[in-house]
Amino acid sequence: MENNQEQEDKKPTEIADLGEFGLIRYLTKDFPLKNESTLKGVGDDAAVLHFGDKEALVTTDLLLEGIHFDLRYVPLKHLGYKAAVVNFSDVYAMNGTPKQITVSLGISSRFTLQHIEELYSGIRLACEVYGVDLVGGDTSASVTGLVISITCLGEGNKDEIVYRDGAKPTDLICVSGDLGAAYMGLQLLERENRVAAQSGNPDFQPDFAGKEYILERQLKPEARKDIIAALREAGVKPTSMMDVSDGLSSELLHICHNSNTGCRVYEEKIPIDYQTAVMAEELNMNLVMAAMNGGEDYELLFTVPLTDHDKINKIKGVSVIGYVTKPELGCALVTRDGAEIPIKAQGWSAFLTNNK
Amino acid sequence: MENNQEQEDKKPTEIADLGEFGLIRYLTKDFPLKNESTLKGVGDDAAVLHFGDKEALVTTDLLLEGIHFDLRYVPLKHLGYKAAVVNFSDVYAMNGTPKQITVSLGISSRFTLQHIEELYSGIRLACEVYGVDLVGGDTSASVTGLVISITCLGEGNKDEIVYRDGAKPTDLICVSGDLGAAYMGLQLLERENRVAAQSGNPDFQPDFAGKEYILERQLKPEARKDIIAALREAGVKPTSMMDVSDGLSSELLHICHNSNTGCRVYEEKIPIDYQTAVMAEELNMNLVMAAMNGGEDYELLFTVPLTDHDKINKIKGVSVIGYVTKPELGCALVTRDGAEIPIKAQGWSAFLTNNK
Repeated sequence: MENNQEQEDKKPTEIADLGEFGLIRYLTKDFPLKNESTLKGVGDDAAVLHFGDKEALVTTDLLLEGIHFDLRYVPLKHLGYKAAVVNFSDVYAMNGTPKQITVSLGISSRFTLQHIEELYSGIRLACEVYGVDLVGGDTSASVTGLVISITCLGEGNKDEIVYRDGAKPTDLICVSGDLGAAYMGLQLLERENRVAAQSGNPDFQPDFAGKEYILERQLKPEARKDIIAALREAGVKPTSMMDVSDGLSSELLHICHNSNTGCRVYEEKIPIDYQTAVMAEELNMNLVMAAMNGGEDYELLFTVPLTDHDKINKIKGVSVIGYVTKPELGCALVTRDGAEIPIKAQGWSAFLTNNK
Repeated sequence: MENNQEQEDKKPTEIADLGEFGLIRYLTKDFPLKNESTLKGVGDDAAVLHFGDKEALVTTDLLLEGIHFDLRYVPLKHLGYKAAVVNFSDVYAMNGTPKQITVSLGISSRFTLQHIEELYSGIRLACEVYGVDLVGGDTSASVTGLVISITCLGEGNKDEIVYRDGAKPTDLICVSGDLGAAYMGLQLLERENRVAAQSGNPDFQPDFAGKEYILERQLKPEARKDIIAALREAGVKPTSMMDVSDGLSSELLHICHNSNTGCRVYEEKIPIDYQTAVMAEELNMNLVMAAMNGGEDYELLFTVPLTDHDKINKIKGVSVIGYVTKPELGCALVTRDGAEIPIKAQGWSAFLTNNK
């Protein structure tokens, strides 16, 4: 009898017991509003925002279990953090500042309230770190897996917003941080998961020693708020900008297509971390291809006028990787031995998950 | 050989052939921008909006196959229309005007491009009818059913936005149109689907004669833009307002909870269409319960000061159904014989789909 009582106490809270409105109230109670532009957050038909003389930016992302994430390797808190941050990254990539998000969840019956709280704790942490308000959302049952849809609102000064279509021939092509690490982190997680499954040992401990950086890049990426601030401080306004979510190749083609230009990018200039290189070596994978096509780096890819060369050189964590050309020259990667390889979009595509 | 060629021509276009960016470009090409506040729509990291001296409103809805819709009875075009309109309805319920939407889709492999075009044709029609711009979104594969996430941005004058918390004792409680029809339309669809399944006849024709209104209320609801305009013209600003998506009972409780009031609503005053009543009779269901708890009506529920009584009476399509009381009186339905029944939220809940 006592044992039964104990089990009762430990029983995870069922989401259906709270009801939809109870659940939203419960999950959003620890999200204090931080921005002046947020007049009214969760709890009415719509949130109310005031942008005054700024432009409003809006971006949205849909994440589906089995397509965009695999809960065998991704802790729910990290998933929540990443789901929010990838949206912030899109707003920074417009040279704006993220201010509000809405979060909609579809939750299948295998998730308890504690699971969803874990997910929300990651979202809350991201909101704290980036100064963003949660202002609304929608929560419902799902007959299948977990569905996360996040929309982010941001603001930017009219004269400072940077689009994808402003690159000009002779502009320098720049990228922040390093590339390919998130992709190699995913390869590592997938390998350790296979090894665990083959071992048949439920207590199997994956070996992540010396690979913490690539793991973190996959599980807990950051949006490059710092680079946006550094560019502003240096007085540099990029002529075009995107975040690297699908892979450098794919994003370069977007910028060149939208700006009606070509580009030359130098293999030897592409920033790659040591751990990324070691992992590619271990898995016998082409390192440059991983950096060009891996995706999920959430670094900023941008172009600046040639005259800003000295200013850019002074910004820590930014690499100049090539230059913009006339459109008739096409888009090419220049290898270490001087050969030109046409750049193709082999970026991460959720429609080609099996080929990834 | 010729036959093969013919089959080839008729082969539905595979979504994977287009790729994600190709698909978004393809689907969004027929959405011309209509609003001055839309500076940049689809095609960059974020859309760019300008609200000037207005407040921005934002609302979002997630629709999951098997929970919110059943493609056995809902044509994709209608689904697209409804998915957009229910968001517009939330913005009108703030006394605002919907201006932009983002549409994110998760698409499982059983859908062809033609299917998704059907869905988008409904979204496009809704955008045309309500003067809304499509400004962004996200499209990906889904391992399970169809997922639709729509976020709507709107604008409103600071002094005109209506929240849920402004109802005062003695205010009149008003509702537009009639209630319970969408719910009865769903019952009809479910019944005809059962009959079709039992008949085993693939050419079974459902019998919808004389039930067109309740069917349309379920499949193609409209947002009450006209009522918002009529209220403005009559010089009436509601003290509180919501749209009836979960059911009248649920929405009344929201308004009373947020406004710290009670309410009395008269059974005999609840507007119910003739077809709704006939269907309830046929199915041996309680008509008033259907009208109180059915949901998906997308009518406007609002409160106005008693002094606006004459102005409200002149607006076609608005019924006064009761009045706001002090909180200690609670929320009750007054039956035809004068009994008071406490109002409980039995509204449509996506967490209780089996009990619906």
